[in-house]
Amino acid sequence: MGSQLTIAQYVREHAAKVEQELGQAIPASWDIPGALRDAMQYSLMAGGKRLRPILVIAAAEALGGTIDAAMPIACAIEMIHTYSLIHDDLPAMDNDDLRRGKPTNHKVFGEAMAILAGDALLTQAFYQATQVLRIAPILPEQALKIIEELAILAGAMGMVGGQAADTLGEQGITRIEELDYIHRHKTGDIIVFSLRAGGRVANATDQQLLALENFGYKIGLAFQIQDDILDIIGDESKLGKPVKSDEKQQKVTYPYLLGIAPSQEKVRQLTEEAKSAIIAAGFINPERLLQLADYLVDRDS
Amino acid sequence: MGSQLTIAQYVREHAAKVEQELGQAIPASWDIPGALRDAMQYSLMAGGKRLRPILVIAAAEALGGTIDAAMPIACAIEMIHTYSLIHDDLPAMDNDDLRRGKPTNHKVFGEAMAILAGDALLTQAFYQATQVLRIAPILPEQALKIIEELAILAGAMGMVGGQAADTLGEQGITRIEELDYIHRHKTGDIIVFSLRAGGRVANATDQQLLALENFGYKIGLAFQIQDDILDIIGDESKLGKPVKSDEKQQKVTYPYLLGIAPSQEKVRQLTEEAKSAIIAAGFINPERLLQLADYLVDRDS
Repeated sequence: MGSQLTIAQYVREHAAKVEQELGQAIPASWDIPGALRDAMQYSLMAGGKRLRPILVIAAAEALGGTIDAAMPIACAIEMIHTYSLIHDDLPAMDNDDLRRGKPTNHKVFGEAMAILAGDALLTQAFYQATQVLRIAPILPEQALKIIEELAILAGAMGMVGGQAADTLGEQGITRIEELDYIHRHKTGDIIVFSLRAGGRVANATDQQLLALENFGYKIGLAFQIQDDILDIIGDESKLGKPVKSDEKQQKVTYPYLLGIAPSQEKVRQLTEEAKSAIIAAGFINPERLLQLADYLVDRDS
Repeated sequence: MGSQLTIAQYVREHAAKVEQELGQAIPASWDIPGALRDAMQYSLMAGGKRLRPILVIAAAEALGGTIDAAMPIACAIEMIHTYSLIHDDLPAMDNDDLRRGKPTNHKVFGEAMAILAGDALLTQAFYQATQVLRIAPILPEQALKIIEELAILAGAMGMVGGQAADTLGEQGITRIEELDYIHRHKTGDIIVFSLRAGGRVANATDQQLLALENFGYKIGLAFQIQDDILDIIGDESKLGKPVKSDEKQQKVTYPYLLGIAPSQEKVRQLTEEAKSAIIAAGFINPERLLQLADYLVDRDS
């Protein structure tokens, strides 16, 4: 299906399908306060590459699963990602006024509604996840496992823990180990969830799940380092955000600690290791995952 | 088991068991930032009557289920309740400095950590809920149903929606219908979840689940009206919070709209209707639920 598409086209097409689903995720028939609905929709439909949902879909497809079967989890993880951005942008956190060139949620709807919209999206992610059983050819035990992993990898031991470490460590981080903890949890864990859950949707074996996890942590870290490199050498107009912001905030990053060339080498190495893990695990249809590993770091924005 | 206990003793004993479980819910072995752990623990162990967990347990026991089988859901709903208090107390929301006589979460840990502790507790509630299958004698489909209902009743269509309506409506509410929407969702929905989930843990029939739901909305509203009555005529030292706060905030309440005596009559009537719903549905062991209906409104704090 669609294997003649370039990876950029594949990403665009799948992102469009995910957005179509997300656009229907808060039906007009729901009797909820209008401002809450608007605040949830605003950030959910504010664009972005939809990379995490695409990883869910690509992992399922690598095992012969369908995009439809992967869709409830794809939507769930985008809701988690979206809520985390809304809360991270709050004045008490990063205090950002703009996100992807648009005013942040609290700038439009006020802080109270932004907090509640985040809470609502986080909660609804779990609703979406329960819907996987209606579509995917899996046992209920497998659906429960997906939900359990979502709660672990998005919670205190996962994404929220990484965010907390980042918040606490601001300006105080001096070692790669601390930086790795933050990257692993703040960004890595929900990438790993996306891949493992996509695998589960298509009944992956334990060994395949481990390969997807390994792949996920490596591409997650590569992606993050690439982000930090682009912050130094990127083109502001392509990135859609100011460059050198890390430097101004005295943020400790890989390029800051290792230098730019060694960081670029680290990205290359992580990407190769990620691809090797997938190749070794014997997927039916691994091409898109392998292409995504390169796509994530071969970018200028 | 323990049927010789008064209802007050039953509530105290069960609250103690729930607290013991909650005290172990964030194990020391978890590799998470210390401040996040402390912030989560602080509010989770800050006391309170643990009424929602006790409703889970009483509903399960009414159908012959055990306290052990009910415990994962009992802990899950207390985490939801706790996160909602942390977020509601934030400066952007109710801006409260004290809760149950202690400084609120953000006063101790700062706003950023309070937001994250709330997010982490909300997420962990779903982890707890998945653990029901390890203990309760139910099918995985039933566990998924519990999680689905938790996501609905705690989310945009439930508790968060009620909170949003309350936030938006401040000073603008003039009609009983608007007040009922807020009560039904802000407090009613997670009471109803507690009862239905407790029922599911003990394999309730659909008819029994409906009776539990009916009971829940009625005792939830009775509890809320009683709260508003106590705010006017209660004893500050017993309540542990200032009285007449609603009046000062010009908050529209049942006693404000109907008067005190008609509100007291409404509480009595709702409690009787709630008990009738349970009596009609043929539970094995309904006594504790019936006693709890009275207990919730026969209180001075």
